[in-house]
Amino acid sequence: MSAPPWNRSEFEAQLRARGAGYHIHHPFNVRMNSGLSSPEQLRGWVANRFYYQTRIPQKDGAIIANCTDRETRRKWVRRILDHDGDEQNEGGIAAWVRLGEAVGIPSATLFSQQLVVPGVRFAVDAYVNFARQAPWQDAVCSSLTEMFAPRIHKDRLANWPAHYGWIDTAGLHYFRSRISLAERDVEHGLAVTLDHFTTRPQQEHALEILQFKLDILWSMLDAIEKAYPNCEAP
Amino acid sequence: MSAPPWNRSEFEAQLRARGAGYHIHHPFNVRMNSGLSSPEQLRGWVANRFYYQTRIPQKDGAIIANCTDRETRRKWVRRILDHDGDEQNEGGIAAWVRLGEAVGIPSATLFSQQLVVPGVRFAVDAYVNFARQAPWQDAVCSSLTEMFAPRIHKDRLANWPAHYGWIDTAGLHYFRSRISLAERDVEHGLAVTLDHFTTRPQQEHALEILQFKLDILWSMLDAIEKAYPNCEAP
Repeated sequence: MSAPPWNRSEFEAQLRARGAGYHIHHPFNVRMNSGLSSPEQLRGWVANRFYYQTRIPQKDGAIIANCTDRETRRKWVRRILDHDGDEQNEGGIAAWVRLGEAVGIPSATLFSQQLVVPGVRFAVDAYVNFARQAPWQDAVCSSLTEMFAPRIHKDRLANWPAHYGWIDTAGLHYFRSRISLAERDVEHGLAVTLDHFTTRPQQEHALEILQFKLDILWSMLDAIEKAYPNCEAP
Repeated sequence: MSAPPWNRSEFEAQLRARGAGYHIHHPFNVRMNSGLSSPEQLRGWVANRFYYQTRIPQKDGAIIANCTDRETRRKWVRRILDHDGDEQNEGGIAAWVRLGEAVGIPSATLFSQQLVVPGVRFAVDAYVNFARQAPWQDAVCSSLTEMFAPRIHKDRLANWPAHYGWIDTAGLHYFRSRISLAERDVEHGLAVTLDHFTTRPQQEHALEILQFKLDILWSMLDAIEKAYPNCEAP
């Protein structure tokens, strides 16, 4: 017999505890946030992370493609609008282009994907393919790394201007814009997850899905760190 | 050597010529439009067509999932909003529910899908699966049956009130709302198609895709006609 299910707050606590493996703790991010990254490393990170940004609306389209619940789709579609933009709002991808320009990457270079390393491509594509093939509730669950995102954005907003004075702070708008959106998105994604995964085996499956997504983000930084190694004095 | 490509207006004319096979000409639709359908037949059509309506946002999500071009996604996402609705607009699915109520189908019955016949389900699912698996430009091309849709909506708005006085005309709002949206959607879908399919073999492939979609709509009416046969005096 399997263990009894966690109640909602226990289950949420289990999910939130996985934040210990969030890429905020990856050595590359720790160095970036401590002012130790070179301009080349920052540019490498921005250009590679852009590949993730450009694929997010496709991931969200895949969730809508699989979702038979109109109420969920009506909320989820806002994520596509947030990233691709609409008449009112330039959107996250355009904001990331401005971040790229602020660190010295022309937008043509960013869009060309010439700086994207294979390990980043494989990790991001694994995420999009998961959303295409998994039940939509699983794909929703995989988005819950957003629970840990406001902290990482706030850290960058606090630390980058202090450490990297050469970056125009107007370029950091993406991080600012994501804080409230991430909070709204988490509220919805968490509600779906807490409602859908109700037996203990299902709840443990949800934790595995969240770990898979944490691995994707971590693996991206591994690949970026390998491509843009630290050049310290010997 | 293959034949030379059609120029844009020739290619568009070839696409539009396929309207000869649009389900506006299907015997079931002809009878419906001539006032010869029974209330049971109308209810059967509305309930079965609803399955198509509910799957359209998923089809459009699949196109966004496959589409790497942000400008196209920004336009395409409006179709999801049109059908699922947003804060400003109840959306096409909700409007279809009101059509259902006007012909005497409680919304719970509509959503239960208990009246949906297998042939309709298979045809609609074939369309969604095509959008999931085909290149996004092919899936866009398959949407071009919208070229022929304004006529079918206008016919219903003109003829249903005359023939079916028992249907509250407020229930016909869906047909009215789709006329301008279909025209806007065609403009975009046609531009993508004329831009993308440029060699003669590609253009002929586009015609095959459009035919596939015409077959889906036609096949739905075949299945509905079979399930709701004419009961004429012998």
